[in-house]
Amino acid sequence: MAQDALQALLVTHLPDVRWLCGFTGSNAALAVLPNRAVLFTDGRYTVQAREETRGARVSIAKQSALKEACALLSEHTRHAWIDPQHTSVAELDLMRSAVPAKIRRGFFLPLKSPLIAILRMVKDAAELALMERAAKLGCSLFEEIVQRMHSGMTEIAVAAELEFLARGMGAEGMSFETIVASGARSALPHGRATLARLPRKGFVTLDFGVILNGYCSDMTRTVHMGRASREERAAYDAVLEAQQAAVDAVRPGVACSDVDEAARSVLRKAGLARHFAHSTGHGVGLEIHEQPRIAARQEARLAAGMVITIEPGVYLPGRFGIRIEDMVAVTPNGGRVLTKIAKDWIEIEAGVSPARAKR
Amino acid sequence: MAQDALQALLVTHLPDVRWLCGFTGSNAALAVLPNRAVLFTDGRYTVQAREETRGARVSIAKQSALKEACALLSEHTRHAWIDPQHTSVAELDLMRSAVPAKIRRGFFLPLKSPLIAILRMVKDAAELALMERAAKLGCSLFEEIVQRMHSGMTEIAVAAELEFLARGMGAEGMSFETIVASGARSALPHGRATLARLPRKGFVTLDFGVILNGYCSDMTRTVHMGRASREERAAYDAVLEAQQAAVDAVRPGVACSDVDEAARSVLRKAGLARHFAHSTGHGVGLEIHEQPRIAARQEARLAAGMVITIEPGVYLPGRFGIRIEDMVAVTPNGGRVLTKIAKDWIEIEAGVSPARAKR
Repeated sequence: MAQDALQALLVTHLPDVRWLCGFTGSNAALAVLPNRAVLFTDGRYTVQAREETRGARVSIAKQSALKEACALLSEHTRHAWIDPQHTSVAELDLMRSAVPAKIRRGFFLPLKSPLIAILRMVKDAAELALMERAAKLGCSLFEEIVQRMHSGMTEIAVAAELEFLARGMGAEGMSFETIVASGARSALPHGRATLARLPRKGFVTLDFGVILNGYCSDMTRTVHMGRASREERAAYDAVLEAQQAAVDAVRPGVACSDVDEAARSVLRKAGLARHFAHSTGHGVGLEIHEQPRIAARQEARLAAGMVITIEPGVYLPGRFGIRIEDMVAVTPNGGRVLTKIAKDWIEIEAGVSPARAKR
Repeated sequence: MAQDALQALLVTHLPDVRWLCGFTGSNAALAVLPNRAVLFTDGRYTVQAREETRGARVSIAKQSALKEACALLSEHTRHAWIDPQHTSVAELDLMRSAVPAKIRRGFFLPLKSPLIAILRMVKDAAELALMERAAKLGCSLFEEIVQRMHSGMTEIAVAAELEFLARGMGAEGMSFETIVASGARSALPHGRATLARLPRKGFVTLDFGVILNGYCSDMTRTVHMGRASREERAAYDAVLEAQQAAVDAVRPGVACSDVDEAARSVLRKAGLARHFAHSTGHGVGLEIHEQPRIAARQEARLAAGMVITIEPGVYLPGRFGIRIEDMVAVTPNGGRVLTKIAKDWIEIEAGVSPARAKR
């Protein structure tokens, strides 16, 4: 704040609040002044807030945590910076109503860049250790679930087994809705698990993550049920090559757009670029989608300590889709893959239950 | 829109979009004009949007779905209404940038009341049928999990079993992070499942919900491990009486504050009102928290077709907590409980595994 000459800051985005002071409740407004910080929450969190919060005084609001935070700020400063990405038009109205009329005009100033999100991009050693553990748990899950998948099993049953195993291994929850997309549904990049049954022949894309100590993992593997056609195998190899090229491009100082282009250019050469309709990856941490974005025209540069996903894919509507995703930590020496499990071709024999994965 | 003399509406809150046109993707902007509606989304959802969307044309945005929706609106109208609760300050800036400068000023008008949220409060027969199924699934889960709970089992293991069973019964997911709060942790109204073990003696609060066809269920039961003290039993009876009083107060035309007061006054007589630090309930539907709020000073009135929760609780920090929650549909004849399973006192014998619930 001193560096950016910010007098006062109001933090309301919950992952930012957690990152700054440790509080994990669902209602919070953190008022930060040069020499003090006060966390406002409500009566549901009286005990929890005192247990969790570090570096800020806790105040239990009688009515609105948000309004009381604004009232406090208005007693000590003439301007408070807010995050325009995570402040709604209605909240801003409410916040203004808590500031005395004579200083209300121009009291709240939108940050030009997302201060806390930018700080959160670079993980410290403790965070990296937690994220490595989360990523490892994800890998163990994949190793286990691939042994249990068989044709005829519903996508939902696969997701259920995966999530049950995750809990058993200590996960607090999944970091997003588990994607199990089989057969022609694998062409849906965000195909939630349905009652569709795994085919005797065709791809199955598994995209999932766990939350461990608040930190998210994220990984995708695509396996094939039964024998693949030559075209399917060639497409898989192209995606794998694209993914590896992007992983290899990761190092401090490289532009995010260049990492994206590393994947995209491989798929272009394979004639598949038009089927790769999303970006190559994103930052990950306390939230599943964080800064930076690994996409075309993203000029931000990677720095050591960032953790990003690399997840190119190709999707042929009505036919099949393939995506391969790793979590990659940026180190001074380049990218270090946290989801260390192999991404070689996996074929699961049809009709065998529990299936033996053939690699 | 005609009734409120609204020329044009921009809908971006995803559950509102789903309710209006059926699309379930994670990026959507629905532009509604008097004689047409266009859903804007991105390339990840090309196939899915065409499959799901009803009553609106689908347009796949090249850059920003939100900006393209605003550009379309600006070609056909001089004012578009937006939802200030679900539009961030940053989004509003972006939206304005898509409107020609000469009509930009005053182009976006914040709705005075949340039009779609208000419409969504009253469920139609098809929605009620889906919600009843979701509530029933919740009850089946409780019946099953209570048979499997035993002292020494971790809270996370209870949550894992519950969620695995839920998937097995066809749930698409849980409607919020499952709460399993045992022993002194039951005094945390929002105690997520941790590695804490169920005690030989003490309360366990289970608060959970499933999503079925997009609709959320929500219920809470509190059981006791081992023999309870007279004070614990008396507190349970008071919460149960308060909960039943609020359920009995549900009928069309009653103010939400009166339903809240029905529960609160029972706890006041029992000397426990100061330990009831949250509101009595909330609407539920495609989202776990919807309008109306069942709380003090909420003058909104119930109407037939609404579905609300009734969930008073008492929380004695460091000691114990109890909450009992049902989903209740408002019918012309009063409240109809959808979570029909009994809420009588349940004691689970210590050390028995799998425990037999004794009622």
